[in-house]
Amino acid sequence: MANPSPGYSITVRVEAPSNYQVTSELAAAVGAAGAQVTALDVVESHHDRMVVDVTANTSSPAHADEVADAIRAIDGLVVEHVSDRTFLIHLGGKLEVVPKVELRNRDDLSRAYTPGVARVCTAIAEDERLARNLTVKRNTIAVVTDGSAVLGLGNIGPSAALPVMEGKAALFKQFADVDAWPVCIDTQDTDEIVKIVKAIAPVYGGVNLEDIAAPRCFEVEARLREELDIPVFHDDQHGTAIVVLAALNNALRVVDKRIEDISVVISGVGAAGHAIIQLLLEAGVLNIVAAGRSGVISRGEEHSDEHRRWIAEHTNEAGFTGSLVDAVAGADVFVGVSAPDVLTEDAVASMADRAIVFALANPDPEIDPVLAGRHAAVVATGRSDYPNQINNVLAFPGVFRGLLDAGVNDVSTEMLVAAADAISKNVSDEELNPSYIIPSVFDRDVARDVADAIVAVAERDAQRDAEPAPAAV
Amino acid sequence: MANPSPGYSITVRVEAPSNYQVTSELAAAVGAAGAQVTALDVVESHHDRMVVDVTANTSSPAHADEVADAIRAIDGLVVEHVSDRTFLIHLGGKLEVVPKVELRNRDDLSRAYTPGVARVCTAIAEDERLARNLTVKRNTIAVVTDGSAVLGLGNIGPSAALPVMEGKAALFKQFADVDAWPVCIDTQDTDEIVKIVKAIAPVYGGVNLEDIAAPRCFEVEARLREELDIPVFHDDQHGTAIVVLAALNNALRVVDKRIEDISVVISGVGAAGHAIIQLLLEAGVLNIVAAGRSGVISRGEEHSDEHRRWIAEHTNEAGFTGSLVDAVAGADVFVGVSAPDVLTEDAVASMADRAIVFALANPDPEIDPVLAGRHAAVVATGRSDYPNQINNVLAFPGVFRGLLDAGVNDVSTEMLVAAADAISKNVSDEELNPSYIIPSVFDRDVARDVADAIVAVAERDAQRDAEPAPAAV
Repeated sequence: MANPSPGYSITVRVEAPSNYQVTSELAAAVGAAGAQVTALDVVESHHDRMVVDVTANTSSPAHADEVADAIRAIDGLVVEHVSDRTFLIHLGGKLEVVPKVELRNRDDLSRAYTPGVARVCTAIAEDERLARNLTVKRNTIAVVTDGSAVLGLGNIGPSAALPVMEGKAALFKQFADVDAWPVCIDTQDTDEIVKIVKAIAPVYGGVNLEDIAAPRCFEVEARLREELDIPVFHDDQHGTAIVVLAALNNALRVVDKRIEDISVVISGVGAAGHAIIQLLLEAGVLNIVAAGRSGVISRGEEHSDEHRRWIAEHTNEAGFTGSLVDAVAGADVFVGVSAPDVLTEDAVASMADRAIVFALANPDPEIDPVLAGRHAAVVATGRSDYPNQINNVLAFPGVFRGLLDAGVNDVSTEMLVAAADAISKNVSDEELNPSYIIPSVFDRDVARDVADAIVAVAERDAQRDAEPAPAAV
Repeated sequence: MANPSPGYSITVRVEAPSNYQVTSELAAAVGAAGAQVTALDVVESHHDRMVVDVTANTSSPAHADEVADAIRAIDGLVVEHVSDRTFLIHLGGKLEVVPKVELRNRDDLSRAYTPGVARVCTAIAEDERLARNLTVKRNTIAVVTDGSAVLGLGNIGPSAALPVMEGKAALFKQFADVDAWPVCIDTQDTDEIVKIVKAIAPVYGGVNLEDIAAPRCFEVEARLREELDIPVFHDDQHGTAIVVLAALNNALRVVDKRIEDISVVISGVGAAGHAIIQLLLEAGVLNIVAAGRSGVISRGEEHSDEHRRWIAEHTNEAGFTGSLVDAVAGADVFVGVSAPDVLTEDAVASMADRAIVFALANPDPEIDPVLAGRHAAVVATGRSDYPNQINNVLAFPGVFRGLLDAGVNDVSTEMLVAAADAISKNVSDEELNPSYIIPSVFDRDVARDVADAIVAVAERDAQRDAEPAPAAV
C-alpha cells in the first residue's frame, strides 16, 4: 500500500462515551488501520458522551473507508461523518478578489469610481503605457490553460483544470505577491487560444502558460511571444528547466565536475525535455544526448515535428544511435522527464563515476531513487517524500515578480539562467551535500533572489540598448 | 465654475515657517481660491519650520493648479509637491487576488496543490457540475467590456476601461462579497466577443456586461444568454432599469398614484431606455411613450434596428407622433436616459398634477433638478449632489449575490422586478418623502435584500418546475 499522505487527509467526527480510554483507543485503532493521526480534538463534551474529531492521513479513498470502518468496529463509538480535508479546502474555490481601496463613503467612491475614475480612464486613453501604473496590469498575470495536459491526468478540460490553476495563483501570491488569475480556455484550437489570450491581454502584465499539451504549447508560446508586448512563459517548460539547471549547478559542486566537461542524457523530448536542453546548452553544457520513446534522437533520422528536428540539430554531435539504456553508459548526468521505470539499476551502475540522476517523472520516477542512490552520487526526484525535490514552485513566483518589477516586454534565456543561478546560490557551501542540492520550496528568500536576478539582467539589457553602438572596425 | 468634488481632490505638501498663523493662513488661501479643505496634517515639525499636507477638493486639474499657485503666493511658503488623490488611489490597480487557503507547509501544499488537487480535478472531470462547489466558479463573475461606451467617455478601448471595471469589481466585493474579475476584451466584433466570453466561461458563475455600445450590447447579451449556462446581465440596461423601477415604486407612494394608471414618457431609446421600457411593462405600466433624438417612436414608421422596432410595437398604443416636449404634456412620469437639457421647465409645467421627473443623464441631466422641482412633485437624478440619486450600485451587487446563491443558469424579468421591489421596501413609510425615495448607496441592507428577493423567485421557479403539470381541462 502507498504511504499515507496529506493529500488523502480525512477528519472523522466520532460520538463516544465520556471516559478516559476512548481517545487513546480511537487513535490506536486509526493507527492500526495504517493511517497517521495528525490531530485529535474534542469538539463537544457532555456528562455521558463526547464528540471527537480525529484527523489522519490515509493513502487512498478506499483506505479512508477502511479507517472509518475500524473506528465503527470499536464498541460504543459512532461515526457521525467522514470529511475529506482535500475536498474541504477546495469548497468555494481557493481565491478571492479583494479591493485594495476601501469604499466606505462618498469621498472614496468619488475617487475610486465615478466621477473621479473618468480622469484616470482618459489619461490611459491618451497614453496606454499608463495602464502599467494605474491598473492591476502592474502586478497581475494570467495563468492560462486549455486543460489538455493537466498534472499526470491528461486532457481533462478547462473546468477540471481550474483547481490546479487556482492553486498556482495562490502560490504566486503567497511566494512573490504576484496577483495571478486563472484563465481556463474552453477550446484546444491553437489559433483560437492565441486569439483569446491576445484579446484578454489588456488586463495582464504577463502570461504564464500551464498544462498545455505538446506540441501545441510550443506554437502557442512562440506566437504569443511574437504578438504580445508582455512576457509569456510556459511553466512546464521553462520553470522546470530553471529548477533542473539550479539543481544541476549544485550537484556539480557536490561531485566536483565542471559544466562544460559533463555528458548529459535527457529522457523525454516533450515540452519539458525540449526546454531543459535549450537551457543546459545556454548554461554551457556541450555534450547532450536526448532520447524519446523510440530511442536516442540523432541527425540522420527524419523527424516529423519541428521540435524534434531542433533537438536533433542541437544534440548528439557524435551521432550516437541506440536505446536510452545504451546512451546512459558512461554519462555523467541523467535527467528524466518521461515515464516510470525507464531506467534500470544496471544502467545507473554503467554511468560515469560520481554520476548524477534526476528522475523527475511524477508521481512514479524513471527509477526508484533508493536503487539509483546505490550507484549515483546525487539523486533528485519530483517528489516531496525524498530528498532533493525538483519543484517549479522554486522558480515561477520569483520569475514573474522579476518580470513585472522590471516591466519588460519579453523573457530572455539569459534571464532563465540567472534565475537558476539565484536558486543554486540559496544553498550555501555549509548546507550543500548530496541530499541537499536544492532549497526547500518554503524557503522565502528564493523568490526574492530570483526576482532580483531577473531585474539585474533586464537592467543590463536596458543599459546595453541605451549605449551607443561601438564604431564598426 | 463647477463645484469642488472629491473626484478632483489634491494633497499639497507645503514647507512653512513654524508659527501659529501658518496653518490658518494656508487653509484660508485654499478656501479663497475656491477649493474645499478636507484635511490639514502636520507631517514634520522642526524648531524653525514644518511640513504640512493640505488636502482639498478642487473642481478641475486647472483649478488644482490655481490652488497651488495661491499657496505659493503666500510669503514664506514653499510647495514641495501636489499629488492628485484620484490618481494616487489608482496606483498599482484597485484589486488583488488573495488565496483563501494558507500554504504554510507541506501539509497545506499537499491538499491545496499537488498531489491532493488531482483528486479534485478528477472529480470535476467526472461530473462538471462539481465545479460550482469546488472552484472559484461558486462565487466569481466576469465583468466584461469591450471599452466601447465607457461612462460618458465613449469608445476609449479596453485598457482605458479597466479602471472602471476594477472599481465595479471592488463594489461587488464590498457590497455583496461577490468575487468579480475584469475582462477587458481587445476587439469590438460581436462574434469575437461572444466567442471569447464563451471560451473563458469555465471560471465564472455569471457574466456582468458593462459599457458595451448599443446595438452591439443587445446581440452580445442575447447570444450569451442563449449559449451559456450561467446568468448574463448587462448592467447598463438591467441594473439601471431595476433602480428606476425601485425609485418609481416609491415616487408613486409619495404622489399616491397606482402604477397601472400612470402615463410614462421615456427619453432615450438606447440600451438603458430599452431595458427600462421592458421592466416597466413587466411591472404593470400600461401607457408608455418613448422618444429618441428625432421624436416619439410610433408604429407607423420604418425602424432600421430590431430594438426600435420592438419599442414601437410595445409602446405608444395611441399612436401619438411629435416631439418629446409634446409627448410630456399631461404625462405623470418623465424618465430621461438621454442627453443634457432636452426637457424645458415649461414642459415639466405641462405635465400632469403631482408629476414625477427622473432626469438621469450624467453628469448633466435632461433638466436642472432645481427647475424641475418647481413643478414636479418628485425629482431624481443620477448625481450624488442632489437628493434621490438613481445609482446602479443599489442593484448589481445584490443581483449577482442572489444569482450565485440560487445557482441559476439564467436571470428572468421576474427576478429584476423582485430586485426593484426589494430596493423600494428599504425606504420605510416613516422615511419616505419627496427627497428620499431611494436608499443611500451605502445602505448595507439593500444588497442582502435584493439577493434574498432573487433567491425567492428562483426557489419558486424551481418548485413550479418540479410540480406535476395540472391536468388539461
